[in-house]
Amino acid sequence: MPNFRMTLCYDGTRYRGWQRQGNTSNTIQERLETAITELLGQPVEVHGSGRTDAGVHARMQTASFRAKTHLPPERLLKRLRAALPPDIGVLDLCEAEPRFHARLSCTGKTYVYRIWNSEEPNVFDRRWQHVIPEPLDLEAMQRAGDALCGTHDFTSFCSNRRMKKSAVRTLRSVKVERAGGEVRLTFTGDGFLYHQVRILAGTLIEVGLGKRPADEMEAILAARDRDFAGETAPAQGLILWETRYD
Amino acid sequence: MPNFRMTLCYDGTRYRGWQRQGNTSNTIQERLETAITELLGQPVEVHGSGRTDAGVHARMQTASFRAKTHLPPERLLKRLRAALPPDIGVLDLCEAEPRFHARLSCTGKTYVYRIWNSEEPNVFDRRWQHVIPEPLDLEAMQRAGDALCGTHDFTSFCSNRRMKKSAVRTLRSVKVERAGGEVRLTFTGDGFLYHQVRILAGTLIEVGLGKRPADEMEAILAARDRDFAGETAPAQGLILWETRYD
Repeated sequence: MPNFRMTLCYDGTRYRGWQRQGNTSNTIQERLETAITELLGQPVEVHGSGRTDAGVHARMQTASFRAKTHLPPERLLKRLRAALPPDIGVLDLCEAEPRFHARLSCTGKTYVYRIWNSEEPNVFDRRWQHVIPEPLDLEAMQRAGDALCGTHDFTSFCSNRRMKKSAVRTLRSVKVERAGGEVRLTFTGDGFLYHQVRILAGTLIEVGLGKRPADEMEAILAARDRDFAGETAPAQGLILWETRYD
Repeated sequence: MPNFRMTLCYDGTRYRGWQRQGNTSNTIQERLETAITELLGQPVEVHGSGRTDAGVHARMQTASFRAKTHLPPERLLKRLRAALPPDIGVLDLCEAEPRFHARLSCTGKTYVYRIWNSEEPNVFDRRWQHVIPEPLDLEAMQRAGDALCGTHDFTSFCSNRRMKKSAVRTLRSVKVERAGGEVRLTFTGDGFLYHQVRILAGTLIEVGLGKRPADEMEAILAARDRDFAGETAPAQGLILWETRYD
């Protein structure tokens, strides 16, 4: 059965996240599966590189699915674009190797957390920014971010308190940058736990506001306890920026 | 009575344009007047540099109003920001010279018309772009734009067919540029007639699509007849970019 690979983007504002949740929910996966199933006249299961939370956006999400069809990928792409709502876009669709799987084959991801850090309003980007008008100490945030990089047990940065699998992940880099009124936090790693990026962002924000010292990160990691890290930052500032497949 | 000057931005998507229309309408002017009137406890009339149509956005709109108040402008700015909906923003508020009037003192404006010119979807900027997936001949559009510059009677580019006042305006420059999937048309002039920018944009788009020759512009101007120009381009792609006061 042919295997397909898609690159997607979405404005997550009005969705309950990536993952299908029964019949009545409004999720990205469900919208894609419904559209492809109707186009091809057969039940189709779509796998994403990972699940994004309710309200989280994607500049580039990768997904894959298997389906019996003689339709060339270009034609399927065109029809799928026409069938989807305007806040879910298919950037690319092609046939993939038989063994390709969007989640299992994924070797790395980059997330960007956008903060609007100004007293001036920003009416155009407000849907994908978290607003913090108070001054942020970017140097301290960068120091804390650097201290979190490497291969660690990230239990303290995971919302799932009953994780049975390993919470060891490799965080390759954290970049803290300002461009005008916006502060961008860029997290690159091999994979992320449930809520990990939002808890990392929330912890760095507390460092930036002077509510906790930058040199506390090692202790938070060592505690392996969710209560030691900062708050989970709001979903609307988070964007899945890139997925990598080696 | 003190005179105030504001710089505003707004996402015009859900508004019926700038101008107040009785009691029940949802317009930018009405929202501002209601907020300021409530804050200062007196009826206030807000004047804009010009009226934007329903669905048109502003990156920078200038407005002025007179009110009796001892409140320092910084405090008024803060309160007004808190009172307005998230799609109307006040960038700046200060006391102005007694004779300043946002419309009468305005000496020039720049509008940008944004076109998403790609088959790939753009989920993030779709609210302020007009989508045209077909290829556009930018060189021909620029030639047509150049031919429209100068001081002319723009009756052919005005939707008000019963204009009693002069339709002579000076169009200082038209720039046609591509950045990735986006084509931007930038119009700078001393002032614009009703629907003028949208008819200019619609006419240039028809030139870009090969539906009319670029060298037809002089004849359209000379006709002084709305029927000779192209269609009125959709409001959502139009942004009031800048207002000038010399």
